[in-house]
Amino acid sequence: MLGRGYGDQTCSIARTLEIVGERWTLLILRDAQLGLSRFDEFLASLGIASNVLTARLATLVESGLLERVPYQEKPVRHAYHLTAMGRELVVPVVALMQWGDRHLAGPEGPPRIARHRACGGDVVVEPRCARCGEHVDVGSIDVVAGPGLAARG
Amino acid sequence: MLGRGYGDQTCSIARTLEIVGERWTLLILRDAQLGLSRFDEFLASLGIASNVLTARLATLVESGLLERVPYQEKPVRHAYHLTAMGRELVVPVVALMQWGDRHLAGPEGPPRIARHRACGGDVVVEPRCARCGEHVDVGSIDVVAGPGLAARG
Repeated sequence: MLGRGYGDQTCSIARTLEIVGERWTLLILRDAQLGLSRFDEFLASLGIASNVLTARLATLVESGLLERVPYQEKPVRHAYHLTAMGRELVVPVVALMQWGDRHLAGPEGPPRIARHRACGGDVVVEPRCARCGEHVDVGSIDVVAGPGLAARG
Repeated sequence: MLGRGYGDQTCSIARTLEIVGERWTLLILRDAQLGLSRFDEFLASLGIASNVLTARLATLVESGLLERVPYQEKPVRHAYHLTAMGRELVVPVVALMQWGDRHLAGPEGPPRIARHRACGGDVVVEPRCARCGEHVDVGSIDVVAGPGLAARG
């Protein structure tokens, strides 16, 4: 969807942006995570053209991030629910939100807060080492070639 | 940068996408995190038009995510280094990478791996509760209105 050039990128970030990097798409997923599910709800929340919303929702259904579920007969109407794959995008979305809260929010504080349902605490998205279990500072992350890159050549 | 409508969104995700949601921008930041710093290096890695790259780099410098540092005189040439603010975007970038690794990578495995420099273990980006310290399942995150949203009205 992001067009020329991305196809040459052997990269999970580029592949992910092919699906979610399209204008408005991450905000549709944000709204779905906030509990919106009907076409009119997304339309009112986002204020985008309805043909653009139709196209973005179709892409998200086709990519397996949303599923279309009928909620009314005569006339048939559909709601859009996050799939398990779509729901997992809450992690990068909250990570983007946190970064924005830190660097771009106004003096009034963050517009939205991610809460842990069980205890009401704030959810933070943080890098952790799967081997030693430690919190990893952003300056201590090395991104190195993996098997998928070697297989390319 | 993402144009009409985003300005109405009182949302740290929308504000973040105003800076990094532009086509190619997250991939430029990915390359900077991989250690690239010179114009020609970005150009070769991304295969984009040089006028587009010039514009994206200027936006990233203006937004405070990259800084322009001279590395040569006669003629003067500049390298682009991540600022502290830019480096923090490694968290959402690795979160997007992880999601792509899980759902979109081929059978050969992930193209790149995020490693903890101190011990060589894999870095995972995970939601954690700042109050109880527990790992938070993606289905147990509620996103609720914060002070910045209330202040809007």
